Amino acid sequence: MVEDGAITQVGRPAHAGGRKADLVISAKGMAVIPGLVDTHIHLAQSLLRGSADDLSLVDWLTRRVWPLQAVFTKEDGRVSAELSMLEMLKSGTTSFVGVDVVSRYGFDGIARAVASTGMRAALAKTIMDSPGYGTKSSIMPEGLVEDKDECIREAKSMIRKWNGVKGGLVRTWVAPRSLGGCSKELYSDVADLAREERTRVTMHLAEVREDVTYAKKNFGLTPFGFIEKVGLSGPGSLFAHMVWLDDRDVRRVGKTKSNVAHCPSSNLKLASGIPKVPELMEAGANVGLGCDGAPCNNSYDMVREMKLAAVIQKARLLDPRAMPAADVLRMATLNGARAMGMESQVGSIEVGKRADLVLIDLKKPHLVPFTDIISNIVYSAMGSDVDTVLVDGKVLVRGGEALTLDEGRIVSEAQKSQDGLFARSGLRA
Amino acid sequence: MVEDGAITQVGRPAHAGGRKADLVISAKGMAVIPGLVDTHIHLAQSLLRGSADDLSLVDWLTRRVWPLQAVFTKEDGRVSAELSMLEMLKSGTTSFVGVDVVSRYGFDGIARAVASTGMRAALAKTIMDSPGYGTKSSIMPEGLVEDKDECIREAKSMIRKWNGVKGGLVRTWVAPRSLGGCSKELYSDVADLAREERTRVTMHLAEVREDVTYAKKNFGLTPFGFIEKVGLSGPGSLFAHMVWLDDRDVRRVGKTKSNVAHCPSSNLKLASGIPKVPELMEAGANVGLGCDGAPCNNSYDMVREMKLAAVIQKARLLDPRAMPAADVLRMATLNGARAMGMESQVGSIEVGKRADLVLIDLKKPHLVPFTDIISNIVYSAMGSDVDTVLVDGKVLVRGGEALTLDEGRIVSEAQKSQDGLFARSGLRA
Repeated sequence: MVEDGAITQVGRPAHAGGRKADLVISAKGMAVIPGLVDTHIHLAQSLLRGSADDLSLVDWLTRRVWPLQAVFTKEDGRVSAELSMLEMLKSGTTSFVGVDVVSRYGFDGIARAVASTGMRAALAKTIMDSPGYGTKSSIMPEGLVEDKDECIREAKSMIRKWNGVKGGLVRTWVAPRSLGGCSKELYSDVADLAREERTRVTMHLAEVREDVTYAKKNFGLTPFGFIEKVGLSGPGSLFAHMVWLDDRDVRRVGKTKSNVAHCPSSNLKLASGIPKVPELMEAGANVGLGCDGAPCNNSYDMVREMKLAAVIQKARLLDPRAMPAADVLRMATLNGARAMGMESQVGSIEVGKRADLVLIDLKKPHLVPFTDIISNIVYSAMGSDVDTVLVDGKVLVRGGEALTLDEGRIVSEAQKSQDGLFARSGLRA
Repeated sequence: MVEDGAITQVGRPAHAGGRKADLVISAKGMAVIPGLVDTHIHLAQSLLRGSADDLSLVDWLTRRVWPLQAVFTKEDGRVSAELSMLEMLKSGTTSFVGVDVVSRYGFDGIARAVASTGMRAALAKTIMDSPGYGTKSSIMPEGLVEDKDECIREAKSMIRKWNGVKGGLVRTWVAPRSLGGCSKELYSDVADLAREERTRVTMHLAEVREDVTYAKKNFGLTPFGFIEKVGLSGPGSLFAHMVWLDDRDVRRVGKTKSNVAHCPSSNLKLASGIPKVPELMEAGANVGLGCDGAPCNNSYDMVREMKLAAVIQKARLLDPRAMPAADVLRMATLNGARAMGMESQVGSIEVGKRADLVLIDLKKPHLVPFTDIISNIVYSAMGSDVDTVLVDGKVLVRGGEALTLDEGRIVSEAQKSQDGLFARSGLRA
């Protein structure tokens, strides 16, 4: 039972205190799970779906992603955010950490779209004061690299404007770019800003082997070692990828109770490698799951992502018992909520928590028969099996249809926007 | 244009010779791809979905799969086959190689169900005259291990009864079990039988590291080296898995033009490892794709399987250019057709080929925008995006609904059958 957006009773209702429900949702033949939490997604990248595949990482970024992002308008930013949310919602994601929201994609427009959709979101502004190793600012989208003080000023103004609006559904974080994209001073300033503004930090870390080479050469430390030194490790920080960690790093990530956003599709498709997820969890780190961006996944479907998270660890460790289904479902729900600092509010179905709920239709041929519902959800289900989605007690998807987003309009606008990006960038599709 | 089950024109129809079509199917907003070919699937295992997860391989087989299969009735065999085909058809599979069809699951009932569904199938009877290494016949389903001559006699009688019925849609093959499950003499007899009856052979090979240990110890050869010696290599044979091959094996598989059924989900979930697929293809082997069984995947969805086949090679080779989308789509279609000995009939959309066609709805939020349709199909689509399926020119799925299988009945029977298996086996669900 849900009242004022909160779960007030779980299980078969013994009584409703004599009151009549405003809405009764039958879950007959369905599984009810906590809303899925995507801990690492790029709202501005869904417009790039299918336009940057099977390329080396450098070509992927410099020949496709950046040239296309360089011609983004604020309208494209809004369309991309809506398309991303539409796909997420329809596949059962209720909360997400959206990274790479920079000013030129129109932060206000994106934040407004998020607020009106009704999802629970942390919008993290990407900040960087240098172009990163191996790249030049001349080939990067204008406005991505900014002066250090400008980075902090903009982030602060966004946080003050948007953090906590819509009853706390929309939050704003800071996302310093991966190593090489920020000066050492900027990392320290980010740590100060997050503390002052009581917000959180997320960043890409140890995604590719080159991160290790760079950190060792420039700081004499591993990537996570450097991050500890600048004061960014800990339970208020969320690190995406974390593929290239040595054993000491794994222990330190656990010891500092840092959060990890594990992005299996992205790590495989971009050939980054397979992270040591069971070892990180064993060490005490909190690991959530993420879909990353459309050009590196190419889906925003956490249901499908769960299966991949389960099976790749079994193959890496040559042990079929590694990463069992229940651990993966927890990773995609409660761990994700913890990574967002919201484990007391969402991530599980408990009295007192907010009603972020997903109903999955179990009566489909690929989901029968079942003995273990969790197994069928993790290993057999896909995003399209999601029937109903509630966020904060509000029904946002019903019978597979999004109620707060206009699917027909968004699908059509998305195609037009991508065509425009190719036309303006001069790239061939 | 399709006439009498064959493709007579591709592209926008210039003329129809003044004749009116019996049926016009609009493919507006859809991709038309060749029917997907699943080169390795176990029809009898869909009833075991979700009942054998996160276990060691030995526990998986001896504590779950075999005890449950031991209490299979012929009715269970038929239900399981129908459920498997329903899931396959709805997700765009038009042809399949069904392995593990043994007499006690009711070969005739299964073959009848396949024929009446209208799919293109090779039904391969599993034969084995010894229990295999590491196992005892006492814990195996009764009737799985048979006398050598009985194995051949039964296989021959099935082939003579069913091979080529329904205009060639149903074929029967022989499936000697993996190494250790057959005597050396039985392998030779199988080679002779296939030659005499002009049919084909499929078997599990080099799936796990133990296969190599076993073959080296008992024959002084690698698994594939042994298979070459007993005369089973070559273009008439299809080997499932092939994970543990040395460099010489890879060259020999290519040189002999042998066929491989690559089963990525199964290899990952059962922790078998990641096979050297690009190397095999480079060497000249023909590699098709397969979903394997419900307890080791746990889906019969070739669309989702394609993405996995693409991304795991990139991660294994740390090269994002490995296993590009077009190669994967070819693996799932034309290569599969070749693995079934049917590349002149199906596997691509060409005038003169049989009309095995799949229409995928591209107007869904997770499939827009698109520049490269193949990329969106391989990396973003899922089985539920399949709208229409034709096999041999007949419409078997329309608007996502199977026309020759009764979904409601099968879903309900499947659950009852699985409940019965648990009740009769005494296992706890």
